[in-house]
Amino acid sequence: MTKKAFTLIASFLISYLGANAQSSANLVQYINPFIGTGAVDASSLSGSNFPGATTPFGLVQLSPDTQDNPDNPASGYDYNDKTIVGFSHTHLSGTGVADLFDILFMPTTGKIYTTPGTSENPETGYRSRFSHSQESAKAGYYQVKLLDYNINAELTATEHAGFHRYTFPQGSDAHVIIDLNHSLNKKRSYWSCRIIDAQIRQVNDRTIEGFRIITGWAQLRKVYFYAEFSKPITSNEMVSGNHIYNNNTIVNGTNIRAALNFDTKDATPLLIKVGLSENSIANAKENLNAEISNWNFDGIVKEAQAKWEKELDKIKIEGTTEQKQIFYTGLYHAFTQPNNLADVNGDYMGADYALHKAKDKTDYSTFSLWDTYRAANPLYTLIQPKRTAGFIRSMMRQYETYGYLPIWQLWGEENYCMIGNHAIPVIVDAALKGIKGFDINEAYEAIKASSTVSHPGSPFDVWTKYHYMPEDLQSQSVSITLEMSFDDWCVAQLAKKLGKTADYNEFMQRSNNYKNLFDKSTGFFRAKDANGKWVSPFNPLDYGGNGGNPYTEGNAWQYLWYVPQNVPELINLLGGKAAFANKLDSFFTIKDLPKEVNGNASGFIGQYAHGNEPSHHITYLYNDAGQPWKTQYYVADVLNTLYNNSSSGYSGNEDCGQMSAWYIFSSMGFYPVNPASGIYEIGSPILKKASIQLASGKTFTVNTKNASEVNVYIQTVTLNGKPYNKTFITQKDIDNGGTLNFVMGAQPNKRWGVAQ
Amino acid sequence: MTKKAFTLIASFLISYLGANAQSSANLVQYINPFIGTGAVDASSLSGSNFPGATTPFGLVQLSPDTQDNPDNPASGYDYNDKTIVGFSHTHLSGTGVADLFDILFMPTTGKIYTTPGTSENPETGYRSRFSHSQESAKAGYYQVKLLDYNINAELTATEHAGFHRYTFPQGSDAHVIIDLNHSLNKKRSYWSCRIIDAQIRQVNDRTIEGFRIITGWAQLRKVYFYAEFSKPITSNEMVSGNHIYNNNTIVNGTNIRAALNFDTKDATPLLIKVGLSENSIANAKENLNAEISNWNFDGIVKEAQAKWEKELDKIKIEGTTEQKQIFYTGLYHAFTQPNNLADVNGDYMGADYALHKAKDKTDYSTFSLWDTYRAANPLYTLIQPKRTAGFIRSMMRQYETYGYLPIWQLWGEENYCMIGNHAIPVIVDAALKGIKGFDINEAYEAIKASSTVSHPGSPFDVWTKYHYMPEDLQSQSVSITLEMSFDDWCVAQLAKKLGKTADYNEFMQRSNNYKNLFDKSTGFFRAKDANGKWVSPFNPLDYGGNGGNPYTEGNAWQYLWYVPQNVPELINLLGGKAAFANKLDSFFTIKDLPKEVNGNASGFIGQYAHGNEPSHHITYLYNDAGQPWKTQYYVADVLNTLYNNSSSGYSGNEDCGQMSAWYIFSSMGFYPVNPASGIYEIGSPILKKASIQLASGKTFTVNTKNASEVNVYIQTVTLNGKPYNKTFITQKDIDNGGTLNFVMGAQPNKRWGVAQ
Repeated sequence: MTKKAFTLIASFLISYLGANAQSSANLVQYINPFIGTGAVDASSLSGSNFPGATTPFGLVQLSPDTQDNPDNPASGYDYNDKTIVGFSHTHLSGTGVADLFDILFMPTTGKIYTTPGTSENPETGYRSRFSHSQESAKAGYYQVKLLDYNINAELTATEHAGFHRYTFPQGSDAHVIIDLNHSLNKKRSYWSCRIIDAQIRQVNDRTIEGFRIITGWAQLRKVYFYAEFSKPITSNEMVSGNHIYNNNTIVNGTNIRAALNFDTKDATPLLIKVGLSENSIANAKENLNAEISNWNFDGIVKEAQAKWEKELDKIKIEGTTEQKQIFYTGLYHAFTQPNNLADVNGDYMGADYALHKAKDKTDYSTFSLWDTYRAANPLYTLIQPKRTAGFIRSMMRQYETYGYLPIWQLWGEENYCMIGNHAIPVIVDAALKGIKGFDINEAYEAIKASSTVSHPGSPFDVWTKYHYMPEDLQSQSVSITLEMSFDDWCVAQLAKKLGKTADYNEFMQRSNNYKNLFDKSTGFFRAKDANGKWVSPFNPLDYGGNGGNPYTEGNAWQYLWYVPQNVPELINLLGGKAAFANKLDSFFTIKDLPKEVNGNASGFIGQYAHGNEPSHHITYLYNDAGQPWKTQYYVADVLNTLYNNSSSGYSGNEDCGQMSAWYIFSSMGFYPVNPASGIYEIGSPILKKASIQLASGKTFTVNTKNASEVNVYIQTVTLNGKPYNKTFITQKDIDNGGTLNFVMGAQPNKRWGVAQ
Repeated sequence: MTKKAFTLIASFLISYLGANAQSSANLVQYINPFIGTGAVDASSLSGSNFPGATTPFGLVQLSPDTQDNPDNPASGYDYNDKTIVGFSHTHLSGTGVADLFDILFMPTTGKIYTTPGTSENPETGYRSRFSHSQESAKAGYYQVKLLDYNINAELTATEHAGFHRYTFPQGSDAHVIIDLNHSLNKKRSYWSCRIIDAQIRQVNDRTIEGFRIITGWAQLRKVYFYAEFSKPITSNEMVSGNHIYNNNTIVNGTNIRAALNFDTKDATPLLIKVGLSENSIANAKENLNAEISNWNFDGIVKEAQAKWEKELDKIKIEGTTEQKQIFYTGLYHAFTQPNNLADVNGDYMGADYALHKAKDKTDYSTFSLWDTYRAANPLYTLIQPKRTAGFIRSMMRQYETYGYLPIWQLWGEENYCMIGNHAIPVIVDAALKGIKGFDINEAYEAIKASSTVSHPGSPFDVWTKYHYMPEDLQSQSVSITLEMSFDDWCVAQLAKKLGKTADYNEFMQRSNNYKNLFDKSTGFFRAKDANGKWVSPFNPLDYGGNGGNPYTEGNAWQYLWYVPQNVPELINLLGGKAAFANKLDSFFTIKDLPKEVNGNASGFIGQYAHGNEPSHHITYLYNDAGQPWKTQYYVADVLNTLYNNSSSGYSGNEDCGQMSAWYIFSSMGFYPVNPASGIYEIGSPILKKASIQLASGKTFTVNTKNASEVNVYIQTVTLNGKPYNKTFITQKDIDNGGTLNFVMGAQPNKRWGVAQ
């Protein structure tokens, strides 16, 4: 055997074994799509996740809805509900506001109903009872027995298509209901959901196509579908409002449904594959043909599982089964969006509502940036660098057609939900970490425009004139002042990298604006009016929502800690490290709640509310105060008590990956308090081992000894074998590859991580 | 000189002289755009025409709006109003329902207002007073002095672009307001107008672009614009709701406006050219560049006039100046729509809301078919055969994407206004007259689908089951039964031509369904319920509107006459010619009105209401009853008393050319009572001469001697020199070319036109 031949064979064996190892890793087994699908009780928040079938970053999320015209949870599925209204093809994961729910299919038998009925009286419509004991889900697959009809319904998905397998009882009165009136709650006036027009057309006895045009949380969505059936449609009933047309070929209208009838005497399942497009029926058909060319349902399930396995494989962990379930379901939730809305041919609808063509065949949307810039986007930056470049190219498209980067982008359109301009930290973080695939100069132009061109929530003329947001000119003024100061700091960092000194100086100046709202008399950031007068009365416990109050979905206690760009200066404002740590102690222990708590605030530890994003970085701030063991304590407390592997596994809305990303980082032992700094604060690792596979081919591994719910305190740390006393690691440390070892114990090691 | 050279010169001279003759005809001088722009008083209906600048069948109608959020008149301009709110780029001509009004521009001086103010207090907004004494309009041109600002505003247009010339007083506080919130009345709940999103962007100091996405009478319209200014914008104020942004580059929102500021010290006018597109800003720019390449405002006016001259030239008439003004303004109104919505590159939005490409670069819309199939479409068939083919190709596109032909198509979308499926007579008429340019077999497929696939207002399963429309299953049942019977007759005629005998027989059978609603006991068509019981109480004077009553915008008297496909059978139903004529006599003389008359019924002669379409053919029915002199009397009465050349020149809404087409045909002496039969009933010509230039090159000329308001009765008729005693002519007579001579007198010649 020559050396060359040996090398070849060895190389083969290595890749074979590697592939095998990867395959045998079977990380998808830990995905539990039911995590986050229900609240513990009516007083709690659901994660707002959905249990149905989807692929990483795909357009389609084919999932059961337990609610017609859903509102809360925003996913349309509540684990505590007893009936299912049907399976719609698009869903949001973890948001606080509902939308999508497009193209609902529901198999039934017996009498034909084309309206869903009520949850109180499921027998008055097509809705069916179901039981969790006859329901199952895994990545890319969902199954439920519809008890009222004795139908076993199974779902899987590709990026642009849903695949249904309905096993009916033997008979001749099987139906599939298509309901294009199923949408978010049309009565909630502030989203003003309205179906503008819709169509269902029977093309032939095995093909249905159509669309709906709808305005809702997303201002305008056009959703086209093309559906193929494995059995012939024997007859139909098409319905528009109260009008019923029998065996019509088409129905158009704003409230349209159809019942398709099938013969199921042969007992073989009915298969339905449904392509979707935001642009045209022709594209929906092209999308379907590109992704599901046969009738092999199980094959598509396997493909979906393989796609998930490939994404999960980026971080391999050791830990308890529950930890693995939370961790990998967390990755699954983080990778459920942003969603590539572009058709396979690259067509997409821009933020200008016009048809455009994406050269890269991708146009990502669902940018819940106020949530995700904190940890979900840094997670993508770390292990999804190519996708991150795609996200940025997609966000840049909004800048080009809409004048500024996304704030909250849904279905390619700005919905102005929440505050700040947090595409900026996302892009700056990626640029500073050297991610390729977007033009850094154009990105800077977009960032600067988003920081200077006034738009809803961002009146930059006010910002420039007052150096804070006066509450009488801009509601949510304290939160915006704090978060905008951080965004400005991010702009400055990229300006610096690009050598734009004047810009750097100007934006660094702006990044200090938060100081103008620090009220020494109360020790809190507090609203001022345009005359510079503190707004009274002031109670640091009082909550704001999304307008009409200086604090966004939080109170003065929660927003006191939001200076991630300059924690040392925040410590100075609060009177030094000791005072700062004392105030943190109070924060985590004061249990008083005002009469009205914003609904998004949940998962309390004192005033800390892990259920909503403003709190997410706060446990880590003890590090800078010289008391890292308290960071360790509270981080471990959150990891161990506010996450679990049940349907109520999150302490609030999962928020498009942010709640999961917090766990993913924190469970490995570090978290990006300042998400654009390349610095990760060290907390309290709970996983025995975590190996991050970097795109460079290098691996960064964290090993943790003795971690447990009791052993939450760091005893010693080594980085690449050398003792490590810093309370943070850097992106460079990770990029270099290597090993970070923790040894944990039940008592704080107050010498570790503190300047000696 | 060789013979060849002589021929060339002669040929040159002929075309030179021909061109000169055409030019010297100067028919556009007779267009008075103010006709139809106002009602006589508050109790009358306006023609709902607009006085602004447009080109034949163009996308853009740049015209002043006197009303903000217009409702009635639907054109946005009421001649009786005292203030103008601005100049918007799209308008409907003559409709009963308002929509469009896109991209309003208004020049002002002094204090900046970005809301229009009220008509009661014009000084509280950008609105300005104006006076008709300082206002003028001609084809393709409009001018008004804005008295509050001392600004002379002039407008002209190309197919896809508006061109503004604003002469400001010398100064430095000149403004142009752009208001994208200007729309139809948003409070009229049944159209539910809502602006979904809009954008104004300052691209540079001479360019503004943007769009608005709006749902209204048309379910969804996307209107993009690209505007170039001849002077630099010195500063701007961009406004979203109550938020004002100074010198911003962009504003997005649902209620956005902008003030652009200019220096006008040099006293030269500010020129603005604005391209429009229904698809994208890029296309709006391309449209503008294709049509207005320079800053020659007067040149564009001349081009617009030449375009109109070319269209008017198809019929040359002699008569009084008032007759010429009514006639040519009628042609102008008839040729104002349908509008080609396609971009110059052929892009258009289909009825499926997706982007499509038209090979012929045209996609016509604004099909007010319930009105126009009666005479406006036959007029197009006669003198606009190429356009007619384009209209049909465009209507076929709705069939392809929407399943059936248009009922009332606005902005490429079906709005289901009015009843029937009157694209059918339009297409059948064109097919039977041999118009080329569309596929007759595909057209038949579309016609048959539109007559068999149930849709709103057309439940064909009910039609097939009951052989009439029961009022309890389909409101407006009498009108629909009558009009659907006619449409069915039309389907049968095309089936016959294509040799589809079974279809012919079936549809001929269906065309008799009207008989099932003839109530012998009352002598009227009357509603039945699904049990076959006459609906009571019944009063033939009682009016219906657009639902909730068996009669559409009319009463039993007016609908009694609607069997154009078989007048002899209608005569039989009514008891023979004498009884029929007596009933007609009653119809034209009974003056009783019920308490509530539908608002569209106006222009009364007894129960006859020329202000709305159901009456339009009725004066001609005496011909079939053997009393043609009564046809002559009433036709002349309508021509002479219900049309004039003033702002209140029509007796009701002009209805997209139908009211004008009635005059155009009738003033020449004939009218298509059955618009798909190729037969024109002879009435009472009032024009001294009318020459119709046919596409074949032939000419059909009508000469009339002694016509006057007194001499309304036909004395003798010759066709091509031979005495002519029939009360109708045929399309073949016209196609052959030739001359029809009338001699009129003050007394009926009761021997003419009557079987001897």
